Amino acid sequence: MPPSPVPLFGRRSFLAGALGVSGGALAAEGPLQVPVWSREQGRGVASPGYGVPSSFERLARKPRTVPAFPGAASTSTPHQHLHGTITPNGLHFERHHGGVPAIDPGQHRLVVHGLVARPLILTMDDLVRFPSVSRLHFLECSGNTPAWQTTNPAWTVQDTHGLLSCAEWTGVELATLLDEVGVKPEASWLLAEGADAAAMTRSLPLSALDGAILAYAQNGEALRPEQGYPLRLFLPGLEGNLSIKWLRRIKLGDRPFQTREETSKYTDLMPDGTARQFTFTMEAKSVVTTPSGGHQLKEPGAYEISGLAWSGRGRITGVEVSVDGGASWRPAVLQEPVLSRCLTRFRLPWRWDGGPALIQSRATDETGYRQPTREALVAARGTNSIYHYNGVYGWQVAAGGSVRHVA
Amino acid sequence: MPPSPVPLFGRRSFLAGALGVSGGALAAEGPLQVPVWSREQGRGVASPGYGVPSSFERLARKPRTVPAFPGAASTSTPHQHLHGTITPNGLHFERHHGGVPAIDPGQHRLVVHGLVARPLILTMDDLVRFPSVSRLHFLECSGNTPAWQTTNPAWTVQDTHGLLSCAEWTGVELATLLDEVGVKPEASWLLAEGADAAAMTRSLPLSALDGAILAYAQNGEALRPEQGYPLRLFLPGLEGNLSIKWLRRIKLGDRPFQTREETSKYTDLMPDGTARQFTFTMEAKSVVTTPSGGHQLKEPGAYEISGLAWSGRGRITGVEVSVDGGASWRPAVLQEPVLSRCLTRFRLPWRWDGGPALIQSRATDETGYRQPTREALVAARGTNSIYHYNGVYGWQVAAGGSVRHVA
Repeated sequence: MPPSPVPLFGRRSFLAGALGVSGGALAAEGPLQVPVWSREQGRGVASPGYGVPSSFERLARKPRTVPAFPGAASTSTPHQHLHGTITPNGLHFERHHGGVPAIDPGQHRLVVHGLVARPLILTMDDLVRFPSVSRLHFLECSGNTPAWQTTNPAWTVQDTHGLLSCAEWTGVELATLLDEVGVKPEASWLLAEGADAAAMTRSLPLSALDGAILAYAQNGEALRPEQGYPLRLFLPGLEGNLSIKWLRRIKLGDRPFQTREETSKYTDLMPDGTARQFTFTMEAKSVVTTPSGGHQLKEPGAYEISGLAWSGRGRITGVEVSVDGGASWRPAVLQEPVLSRCLTRFRLPWRWDGGPALIQSRATDETGYRQPTREALVAARGTNSIYHYNGVYGWQVAAGGSVRHVA
Repeated sequence: MPPSPVPLFGRRSFLAGALGVSGGALAAEGPLQVPVWSREQGRGVASPGYGVPSSFERLARKPRTVPAFPGAASTSTPHQHLHGTITPNGLHFERHHGGVPAIDPGQHRLVVHGLVARPLILTMDDLVRFPSVSRLHFLECSGNTPAWQTTNPAWTVQDTHGLLSCAEWTGVELATLLDEVGVKPEASWLLAEGADAAAMTRSLPLSALDGAILAYAQNGEALRPEQGYPLRLFLPGLEGNLSIKWLRRIKLGDRPFQTREETSKYTDLMPDGTARQFTFTMEAKSVVTTPSGGHQLKEPGAYEISGLAWSGRGRITGVEVSVDGGASWRPAVLQEPVLSRCLTRFRLPWRWDGGPALIQSRATDETGYRQPTREALVAARGTNSIYHYNGVYGWQVAAGGSVRHVA
């Protein structure tokens, strides 16, 4: 189905009937009914004071796989039900290696040591007195999109792209703290360690720390326990596991520390049997969230195609959408403000004619990098990998309006 | 206490001891202890899949007054505990006139009628097919800041400025829907009506609808019940009650409809006994949230002063902070991106010398309007009003570090 060359929405378009939305003319429907909820007092204010979603909504994170033990698990964000760019804290994806510790913030300590002039121990009370910043950024697990070897027509976007969320993170810039302790000239890497039972630990080159935050708040409130309460490292644009949760220790060194999570795990196996190590950056990627797997179109007519695009290298500069399996592409509208290393919502009006359609998106970032096709991705990296899949993704609309995943 | 002319944070400032943060040198503290939560597996992923804050946090909306009946109540946002600019949905302030209705979205209808070419009834399924937008905006009740006649040294910023929140709102631009129904040339006002038991109803001139959204989502997910689920009108920059929740009806007319909520309520009584009517816009305003009433400074030294600024007329262009009761002012840093009709976080490093300090802020917006002093505000409007108080506000730091409200 070729994309329509004319505006799909506009004056008279709905009521003229051409686009088939079922909204009725008032005369045909009769007067507006007065529903029961308009005839009786509603409930009072929420108690105990922290609100929850409507019981008519089915908003929940979804466990990904059956974990080997309860503490090594992940859950994903239901993007098929979400709008805009912010992920509510209750729906932010999770990935734990040793469970979620219950940390008393009054007892928590952060130590900074190693190749520094003045090693330091800080309480949370100390830390919140430093100058702070707030920034909107996405966070994506490098294991998001499990499409290297497998596919499943029943997958929803929560299954394929749910290890991705976006929030406003507030905390102290790591650079501010490093200034305080005085990094020695020979230091070039740091180790970050979590206070969880896994002592989750990663090495990072100092050159990769642009914009790093010692974060104590997300979307205005204190970090959630599953996001590292009371303190996490947040590294914009880099694979999620580097943003060490429950941060207790930073050590400066002159080389990588070669921890378990960067030797046996979180490397990318190439076709020749070698492994890419320290693949930090999440490259440009996008996905259509409406319509997407599990959705059902009710009738032919006007719809809005909508999705998310992001890049670990900066701003998204363009997203193109195809409804004919890649034969032709049209530019989507990007929701302003388009922020660096943040989810960007894109949208395109679409008229569904009732026939089959294959809907895809591809993103380009400010470096000029464009999200690759699956074919190009596999040609470069083979199919041995677990992490860093960012190929173009598709949703098949069948003649009856059902929507299913296709590889 | 005059503001410090020199940078308050910088290389060596903490460990040199001059600013007195209690973070300890590593040698003095001994090795980092291994806490109990590092020695045992944490809990598994959250169940049933919608997460909640840490039990160590006391995050809750606060009922404002004892209501005449349960459905006519309000709760306020705890800005003294928040960071950044986003308000989590669970903490967004509430104001209800007839309680919170439990609306089945499948049964909800929106009718548009009156001076239109094609009156229309829409379901929620219809509405989400229209082109949509997402925008970050504050919402403030015109009754926020109850300072015209009263003051109370025990007030926190939740008491004084808690009928203020900020979220990313997603929905259909009202202009898009009005294009569909065809507004007749003689129409100049509209009526918006809620489906709650109060049938909350307000008139709005079409000239005041710039950026108006038929919103079905906040911060990514479906509207919360107390914010109008499944549909509200959202009017950026205008007093909160105009953003009709549980929106069921829009009627176009050629004059204001003179509803109860714009005749007996939501007007401003002036010194001469007349009342200002249709005072829609929330003028520029700001408040320091850290430190603020109820906080306790532990010791002299370096702190960050932080707060929120906003204007219903556009972007905030500057915020100045005084720590000497208005004798001198210094410009604060505004967190980017500074968005139109959105909360803007401002910050300023501060060194507390241990003596008394009176901390205030004043905001200026892109129209050049500057938040007035209380004296200037009362000179213009007297003290008969209930709504639209936007005077400069202060917090008194006592010699012992306790922080209290002052008028």
